[in-house]
Order: sequence, then C-alpha cells, then structure tokens
Amino acid sequence: MQVRVGVIMGSTSDWPVMEHAVNMLEQLGVACETRIVSAHRTPELLFEYAGQAAERGLEVIIAGAGGAAHLPGMVASRTPVPVLGVPVESKALNGLDSLLSIVQMPGGVAVGTLAIGKAGATNAGLLAAQIIGTHDSSVREAVERFRAEQSQKVMDQPDPRASSSS
Amino acid sequence: MQVRVGVIMGSTSDWPVMEHAVNMLEQLGVACETRIVSAHRTPELLFEYAGQAAERGLEVIIAGAGGAAHLPGMVASRTPVPVLGVPVESKALNGLDSLLSIVQMPGGVAVGTLAIGKAGATNAGLLAAQIIGTHDSSVREAVERFRAEQSQKVMDQPDPRASSSS
Amino acid sequence: MQVRVGVIMGSTSDWPVMEHAVNMLEQLGVACETRIVSAHRTPELLFEYAGQAAERGLEVIIAGAGGAAHLPGMVASRTPVPVLGVPVESKALNGLDSLLSIVQMPGGVAVGTLAIGKAGATNAGLLAAQIIGTHDSSVREAVERFRAEQSQKVMDQPDPRASSSS
Amino acid sequence: MQVRVGVIMGSTSDWPVMEHAVNMLEQLGVACETRIVSAHRTPELLFEYAGQAAERGLEVIIAGAGGAAHLPGMVASRTPVPVLGVPVESKALNGLDSLLSIVQMPGGVAVGTLAIGKAGATNAGLLAAQIIGTHDSSVREAVERFRAEQSQKVMDQPDPRASSSS
Amino acid sequence: MQVRVGVIMGSTSDWPVMEHAVNMLEQLGVACETRIVSAHRTPELLFEYAGQAAERGLEVIIAGAGGAAHLPGMVASRTPVPVLGVPVESKALNGLDSLLSIVQMPGGVAVGTLAIGKAGATNAGLLAAQIIGTHDSSVREAVERFRAEQSQKVMDQPDPRASSSS
Amino acid sequence: MQVRVGVIMGSTSDWPVMEHAVNMLEQLGVACETRIVSAHRTPELLFEYAGQAAERGLEVIIAGAGGAAHLPGMVASRTPVPVLGVPVESKALNGLDSLLSIVQMPGGVAVGTLAIGKAGATNAGLLAAQIIGTHDSSVREAVERFRAEQSQKVMDQPDPRASSSS
Amino acid sequence: MQVRVGVIMGSTSDWPVMEHAVNMLEQLGVACETRIVSAHRTPELLFEYAGQAAERGLEVIIAGAGGAAHLPGMVASRTPVPVLGVPVESKALNGLDSLLSIVQMPGGVAVGTLAIGKAGATNAGLLAAQIIGTHDSSVREAVERFRAEQSQKVMDQPDPRASSSS
Amino acid sequence: MQVRVGVIMGSTSDWPVMEHAVNMLEQLGVACETRIVSAHRTPELLFEYAGQAAERGLEVIIAGAGGAAHLPGMVASRTPVPVLGVPVESKALNGLDSLLSIVQMPGGVAVGTLAIGKAGATNAGLLAAQIIGTHDSSVREAVERFRAEQSQKVMDQPDPRASSSS
Repeated sequence: MQVRVGVIMGSTSDWPVMEHAVNMLEQLGVACETRIVSAHRTPELLFEYAGQAAERGLEVIIAGAGGAAHLPGMVASRTPVPVLGVPVESKALNGLDSLLSIVQMPGGVAVGTLAIGKAGATNAGLLAAQIIGTHDSSVREAVERFRAEQSQKVMDQPDPRASSSS
Repeated sequence: MQVRVGVIMGSTSDWPVMEHAVNMLEQLGVACETRIVSAHRTPELLFEYAGQAAERGLEVIIAGAGGAAHLPGMVASRTPVPVLGVPVESKALNGLDSLLSIVQMPGGVAVGTLAIGKAGATNAGLLAAQIIGTHDSSVREAVERFRAEQSQKVMDQPDPRASSSS
Repeated sequence: MQVRVGVIMGSTSDWPVMEHAVNMLEQLGVACETRIVSAHRTPELLFEYAGQAAERGLEVIIAGAGGAAHLPGMVASRTPVPVLGVPVESKALNGLDSLLSIVQMPGGVAVGTLAIGKAGATNAGLLAAQIIGTHDSSVREAVERFRAEQSQKVMDQPDPRASSSS
Repeated sequence: MQVRVGVIMGSTSDWPVMEHAVNMLEQLGVACETRIVSAHRTPELLFEYAGQAAERGLEVIIAGAGGAAHLPGMVASRTPVPVLGVPVESKALNGLDSLLSIVQMPGGVAVGTLAIGKAGATNAGLLAAQIIGTHDSSVREAVERFRAEQSQKVMDQPDPRASSSS
Repeated sequence: MQVRVGVIMGSTSDWPVMEHAVNMLEQLGVACETRIVSAHRTPELLFEYAGQAAERGLEVIIAGAGGAAHLPGMVASRTPVPVLGVPVESKALNGLDSLLSIVQMPGGVAVGTLAIGKAGATNAGLLAAQIIGTHDSSVREAVERFRAEQSQKVMDQPDPRASSSS
Repeated sequence: MQVRVGVIMGSTSDWPVMEHAVNMLEQLGVACETRIVSAHRTPELLFEYAGQAAERGLEVIIAGAGGAAHLPGMVASRTPVPVLGVPVESKALNGLDSLLSIVQMPGGVAVGTLAIGKAGATNAGLLAAQIIGTHDSSVREAVERFRAEQSQKVMDQPDPRASSSS
Repeated sequence: MQVRVGVIMGSTSDWPVMEHAVNMLEQLGVACETRIVSAHRTPELLFEYAGQAAERGLEVIIAGAGGAAHLPGMVASRTPVPVLGVPVESKALNGLDSLLSIVQMPGGVAVGTLAIGKAGATNAGLLAAQIIGTHDSSVREAVERFRAEQSQKVMDQPDPRASSSS
Repeated sequence: MQVRVGVIMGSTSDWPVMEHAVNMLEQLGVACETRIVSAHRTPELLFEYAGQAAERGLEVIIAGAGGAAHLPGMVASRTPVPVLGVPVESKALNGLDSLLSIVQMPGGVAVGTLAIGKAGATNAGLLAAQIIGTHDSSVREAVERFRAEQSQKVMDQPDPRASSSS
C-alpha cells in the first residue's frame, strides 16, 4: 500500500506519544511510515528526508519533538508537503517549551500544531486524514464514520452519578 | 472562481490580523471567502457555516479568535474539512490564552494551530495552500515559487552591519 | 424533586472532580442532574441541552472541562441561565489551559469561573446554591448553616504544633 | 429604585474597568450602587459592607481588584450573597496575578470569576443580571433581548474584506 | 517564656510546611505560638488575632497560605506588626498562585514574602529572628552562630565526585 | 541623624522605582542612605557594604534589582541585618524574572520580598519602618498614623460613579 | 584582520538587538563578520555556513533569533565551533518563546544561551571574547580591562538621591 | 593531569544532575574538578574560588544551581574565565526560576546558560570541551568523534513501529 503519511520523531523515547498518531491513521485506513530523525543529531538525514518527501509521494508529514523542538519547523523549511507538529511533554516544563518551539514559527514557513502529548498525536493522525480526505473520498468517509462513532460513544455513556454509585 | 478556503473570525477587530491569511491566499492564487462568525454571539451561524462547509466545497477553514478562543475548535467539531486556528493577540495575556484555548484540543477533534498574530495568519494561508497543493499541482507550484522567492530575498539582503553603517 | 442545577462535563474522566459539585449541592439540599455532554464530540447535544435548560426549569448550569475547555462558554452562548465553569486539571499544563479557556470569555457571554479542580467543583456547587438562595430562603439558610459549621470546624482544630508532637 | 447589585472596587483607579459592569447593569435595567472598599486599606469597611449586604437586600456583589486581589474573596467570606470577581489588569503582570488571586479560592468560599479587565467587568454585570433573572422574569427578558440584539449585530456586520477594500 | 512570634496558617494541611518556621525559631531560641486562622473560613478570628497582636507583644507574624492566599495580606491590613508570608505549594499551580497572591500587595500594606514551600517557611523563621535581632543581641548572636555553622557544614562536605564513586 | 536603613540598587536606572522606598521612609521619619552597588559589576563593594552593615548600625537593608536579580540575596548572605528585596520590572519579562530571582532563596539565607516595581518599593520602606517599630515606639506610631490616614483617604473618596458623571 | 566570530541572525529586523554583540566584540578588539541566515527560509545556507565555520577559522558563532528560534540549535548541530544563542524579543510573548526554543536543547548538542534582547547580545559578544581569551592573552586582557572599567563606572556614580534632588 | 574545567554546585543535592557534566567531560578526555560552593552559604569561598580560577589554569567553569540560582552569575562577576550555568530543577517551579535567575544577566557579566536539568549538565560538559577545542585539537577531535557516533546511533535505531510490535 502506498505510504501517504510520514510520522517522524527525534528519538525512540517519543514513540509512546507518537504511536497514537499511527494508531489513528491505521484506524482510518491511511498507510504511514515511521522514522527516527533528529533535527540536532542527524541534520543531514532530516534534510534528505524532507527534501525527498514530495517526490516520494508523502501527502502529509507528522513530526513530534520535545524541549527545544526544532524538527517540525526544520522539516517544513525543506518541503512543500504540509507538516503537522506534535509537542512532546518535556521533563521540566511539561511541554510548554515544546509547544512554543513548534507553534511560534515566523511568517513564511508553516507548521500546523496540535496539543501537547497523546491527544495531540491522536489529532495529528486525524488531521492528516482530513487533509487527505480533501481529495480522497474514502478517507473522508472514514473520518466521518470515526466522528459519528465517537459522538455515539459519548451519548451512550451512562449518567456518571448513577454509574459511580452503583 | 470557486471559493476553496473559508476565512472566519469572531469579530471585525480580528481583521487586521486575519487579512494576512487572505493576502497569502491571494498571492498563491487560492480563492477564499471571509465571514464574521462568533462562537459565543452567533452559535447557530457557526453551526450552519461549519455544517455546510463540506457540501459548499470548502477545502480548508481558517478560523481566528482571541481570549477564550472557541471558534476554531467548535467549527472543527462540526465538519470533516481541515480547520486551521489562528490565535489572535488578546489584550491582557498577549495571546497566550488564545493559543492554549485553540491548541489544547482533546483527542478526537483536531485544529492545526499556527503562531499568535500576524505571522500565524500568514502561515494559515500558506498551510491551507499546501493542503490544497496535495491534490492541485498549480497551487503546489505557487507554494514552491513563493518559497523560492522568499529564500532568495533573504540571500539578497546586504550584510546588516554594512548597511547600518552606510 | 424538581431538578434545579445541571452538572455537565465533557467526559466521565471529569467525574472524580465534578462529583464534588454534586456532593456540595446534595449537602445543601439542592436537587441536580448530571450529564456527559462534550462540546467537541457532541456539539448537537450541547446545543439541545443548553437550548432547553431554561424551559426545563434549570436555575444554574455547572460545566466542567479540561484543556481547550469550550463546554462552559458554548453552553453559556445558548442560554440565559447562569453558567458556572470548573477548570479540570489537564495532564500537561495542570489546568492553566483549562482555566484560561473558560475564564477569558469576550464581553457579552459570561461564565462565572471557579478554581482549578476539586476546590473549584465544590465551590461551583456552593455558588449555585447561593444563587438559588437569592430567591429561596431555605437554600440560603442551608448555605448559612454550612458556612457557620465550616467556621466552627476551623476554630475547633487543635494547635497544630501540639497535635503533631503528641 | 431598590439597589440590587453592589459594585465595589479597591480604588478609584479601578473605575475605568468597573464602570463597564455598571453600564451593563444599567442597560439591563438593574439598579446598582458603587463603592470604594479596599480589602487592605479599609478592612473594617469591607467587613461592614459584606456583613450588611444580605439584610440591605443586595442580590449580587461584584468586586473588582488588581494585583494581590483579596477583595472578592474576603467579601465572599462574610456574606451568603453571591460574589462575582473581576481581575483588574495589573501593571507588571497584566492581571495574571489578579486572576489567580481571585479565582483560586479554597473549597468552602466561592467567587465566580470573570475575565481580566473590561470584558470581565461587562460580563460581571451580565452574569449578575442572569442571576437576578433566575427569579425576576423582567430581568431575564432584558438579558434575552440583549443577547438577541448582540447576535443580530454580529450577523449584520459586512464582509470584513469588502469593507476594508472599499 | 514570652511568645514573640505568631505562626499562623489557614489549615492543618499547611502544617508540614509551616513547622519548618517553628523549627527554625526554636533552633534560634525564639518562643512562638501556632494557630489555625483561615482568612476565608474564620474572617472574624483573623481580625481578632491581627487586631490584638501588637498589644499581646508579638514582634513578628508569620502567615502561611496556599492558592488564593489572602491570609498574610489581610493580617497585615490590621496590625503594625511586621508580617512575613509563606506561599504554600498548591495542587494545580505548584504555588505560583500562592506566591503572586501574597507578594503582589498594593502600596500601603506590606508583606515580606519568602520562597514557596519548606525553604520559605524555614527562612520566615530565620528572618523573624533577624528582625528580633535588630534589638535583641542574644537572638542576633544565635542567628550569627547558625549562619556560621551552616557555612561550615557546606565547607565540610566532601568532593561530591569522590563520595559518589566511593 | 543616625542612618538606620540602607537603600541600595544595582544601577541608577533602578532609582525611579527605588525612590519610592526612600519617600516612604522619609514620610515615616526614618533616616536612610542610598547607594549604587551592583552584585555583578562591583562584587567587592557589595561584600564590603554588606559586611559592614551591622557594625555601621544599619537596622534594615532594602535592595532593588531587576532581571537575574542577585543583589538582595547576596547582601543577605553576608549580614545578619534583615534584607528586603524589591523586584524591579525588567524589559522583556516584566519583572517575573526579577521576582523569582529574589524570592526563591534556598533555606538558610532569607530575603523578605515585596511586589514588583513601585508598590514593592513603597512597601519595602513601610516594612522597614515596621521592623524598626518593633523596638522604637515613635516609628511604630508614625506607621500607625500613616495607616490610619491611608484608610481615611479611601473612605473619603466619593462614589466613583457620581464623580465620573459629574 | 582574521575574522574570529560569526554573528548571524534570521532577519535584518534582529539587527537592532544583534548589533550590541558586534559593538562589544569591536570594543574588545575581536574581528567579526555579520550575516543574515534564516533557519527556516534559507536552510541550505544555514548548513553551508555552519559546515564551513570550523575550516574558515571561526572560533565562536553567535546566533540571534526570535519566536520559534531554531537558528542557534541548528547551527550547533552542524559544527564543533561553540555556539552562543541570543533570544530576540518576540512580539506576542516578549521573548519567552525565543528563550525556551534556544535554551532547552536536548543532551548532545549545546547552545550557550544569553539573556533575552540587548543585554543578551552584549553578553554574547563578551562571552565570545572570554572564550577566545582562553588561548589569546591579548583578548583576555581586553576583557579584564573592560570589566575593571565597568566596575569603576558603577563606583563613580553619585548617590542617586543626591543627584535626583540636585 | 592538569585540571581544565571546574564543576561547582551549591549543594550535594545538585550532584545527580551535575554528574552528567562530569561524565561528558571524562568521555571527551577533559580533566575536571568538582566542588561544593554555595553563593549564599559560603560567599567568601565563592569569591576565593572564582578569584583564583584564572591563575589556577581553569579554562571553563560550569556552575549548577536551583531556585534563586545566584552561583553562576556571581562566579562570572569575579573571573574572566568563561562560565557556563546549569539550571537545576527546583521543587515548586520545575526549574523555571532557576533558568531565569541564571540566564537573565544584565549586560556586562555573561553566563552561557544550558537547558534545565540533566540535558543541560550534559551539554555544559560538551560546550566546555568545544571551548577548549578552539585551541586544543585533540579535544576538538574528541568532540567530533562524539558527535559522529551520536549521529550514527540515531541512524542505527530501528523503525520504532517495527520494534514495538515485535
């Protein structure tokens, strides 16, 4: 199956967060690849990966990083493919540093940033599918099904008070 | 020309920021519409706008808001169209409240968030074009031309010391 | 017994916080209902709940949410019933995002915001009772009894040094 | 006309913010009084004002303060009347200190907190009217009229792009 | 022995922090008393305690509180006795709210604020002794001895590398 | 007149803030001296000043500094005289850095910290007088007179609404 | 004269800050060059500049950037030459985003970070000279002269009170 | 072996962080010494250590401290040797106070600041070696080998998805 989304991260320690992006993509039937690419430790690899993304047919790149998180912005600087950034929680500052390092890009190079941590990774997968859904009706339908099921699940939840006292 | 991107904002006071999204879209040849839609003051209009976005053929929605900025997230809750959020600078907290209100979405409803203020609006326009560029090669080429020109402009800048002392 | 306060929250994971609102209301003899209503996952349900609140006789709505917490503000946008918001602690930012998303409402739609977490939920229940107490003397008396007992409990506490060394 | 809402503040320098609460109350036909009461400079006056609020027939107290803003919480400690707090922007920290000092009350004494500054003062007036509207249908109707007009105003706004380029 | 310092706190839950103030005072030979006095739950007791502090011969009051920490400032508003404030760590915001609520007093009523938590309580005890030491040479000498011993202890510490590898 | 309080600051640029400490001391009849002493640019002078403070008869030292504000803590490390710290507003971070650098002292060396900026300087002067007032009844009486006049001034203020509409 | 320090920045708008680094270097007799190199807009130029720095004989690189400031860290990822980072004040967040984006580097690639803005640029020039001074005694002596003169200037300042009242 | 780097810290409790600086220096073959020197508890020792650093042949000083972290800046005020600062995580504020206390130095005395905690200590060791590498080719080569190995390790990591599902 053609890989449509690249999910990259700076270190294997980011995987417990970033796997939620992969899970969402798989749930929506979008093929993806995963790679360890470090902005700081493997800058050449980052350049190569970003530089070839378009010709390799990637439609979206999801990049997760923590602390002084330069990976999403640097990938975005080298490709016209839309880049989504996931701030990974950092040890001391709980991901506020990651968030600001990713989202506060200067005008001219864009990163669509999601929430800190697991919820953000999940939503990066979802937004990548929505982006692909702008031109692939089967993916759009998968997104719509997911959203409808999600709403139904909330509506099926019992009254919390009732269930807590039972 | 078919409108492809909806640029919405909660109030006309957001226009000096949000016009930068429109400028970027126009520069890249992507037709857009602009609307005042307030999450809090016109919730029905918000629902109607979001609910009809897909069938009206919008490919991306850009939503700008400040303070307790609920517009991007609430639009995203009602449409499978990708939503990009622009945190508008707030008076007291300089947009930190706007940023957190937009970016910290729970898993299951995604908003791709850009930087606070003007740079974020510019990049929302750019990222919308990149998203459309995933399936429209003329827009992708416009993005690539813009990026190449932008790089060239930086490289053409004189040595700052020379120019300041001249 | 006529339900007078609606206690709603975005997810069952908010219940361990929000039950403190229910506990306080029960302690003060004010009947309430509890519901899972998600701003983002069930926006139609949110609209329906808020839209019917007044005619159903609710006198106050207490809404708890975390992260990009849109529930209280969106409920408030659809009802003249007073809305109290409880910021639930979020994982990465400890509820600072929840607080700002709830409290920083634009002029024209109001949410009375309480403290982050358990203390805020307790006080939402108390403030709801105070609001009802503006026109129901039995509830006002229950509030006054609660407050007097609370003061007495503080005054009955032993000298902390004495008790720690005993 | 019977005074129903007390609007108090620590200093005349808070008036340019707090007058927005008064304006909203007047617009909604709710009579109010205004007083300078400082938690720190006139603690006895604060105690007296709060202690007599209920018997004087006040239905809501709105208290605005900045910095280490103790006025709303201390008033609330002395009366069963619902207290709404307005964080006034402080010089160095832009009202973040005011907000946290007002909203982070311990369980047992509640302050319904609004946004920092002018929007918060406006909404304190509105929420006070909503509270009175729980038992006074003419005030509730005034709130509903205000909200409907406000929605209409947003919907009557022209397309911002059109108006900016005209 | 004449009690010279009053150590007060809003709740017994503050004792594990505030006992460090007592420990330091005892180590320096300064007699103190401890009391639970809550600004919000027992405002009359607070007024009474503060109002009598001077005539009871207290030379310094140390007040610890967390969250919207009003105790130190309200005590200071009612007595000419110097008041030292200790911000107790709060659950959600780690004491940043406590710190700002205590330190950001308006001009005209002063609280000398120490660090958040245990170190702050220790230093409140120390600073109280330094204040008493301005007019009591035996206490000043005790402070000087404590400081000299403390310096000596640091100088007696082994090389950390040596001791960790041994 | 015997100098009883030393008011020091890192730079003449701190004077517009620190003069409020001097004004308060003069108003209360407490003689003080002022000095430029920089922790970073004149460490030897700082050591000399702090080392001689006690024998020169200073009863309190007030130290103002901004940014990485080390002056109050370093003075405190060298003298048993009580040290009060005034965080001066910094350019980028509005004095939050100054505040944390001064207040977050480790256990064993204490600085009584006041609010950021002008209000903090005023209160440093007031607290210094309160400290001296623990053993000098004429200064204590001056503090009490100041506080009584201050309360009276608040109580003499007209209704803000009346005065604004007149 | 052999260029020993490269002073780079993302945009000419950073020059009013970064010129202070150049001024300091010139004052200390260290030759430097200045370049506009944008991490995001000219990533290839950044790689080239960093990759050649060592062989071109640069001994230190000073990089200034604002917002999601990736320039210092990305330069550091490509050269063994010591890199100093200067956070330039950003519009919305006053440089807090710049600071965290530069300083919070992961283990393995280091950036020595200076203060936000002008003071940081000045000190980057000074620290670069100190680094060169580790092996060039004439530069070390220039640093020592600068520091001695700086101390003298502080000590020569008149009493601020005297000069303000004169 | 000639000691080239001094690694100092305010307390043995900083050692679990600071040992990462020592580990990196050892890995790169740079001899270092370690000392407990407290800015606040042993100011004379700090002055002595800093004052003798240059003549003792130290080429870099690495200073770690937490909270109101004055050690790096005060050392820097007394020596022309380059000083690197490591903010140690503090209990309440997670090292944000440590970071601001170290990095926000005024113009004229410089501290090259690294990240909060372990990563910052590691990088302080690395940057110290890079500084020495400006004039010692064997150390520069060790740095280059370390960096090459580090890149290789990242590139040798397996696909995280593959390894997690195996």
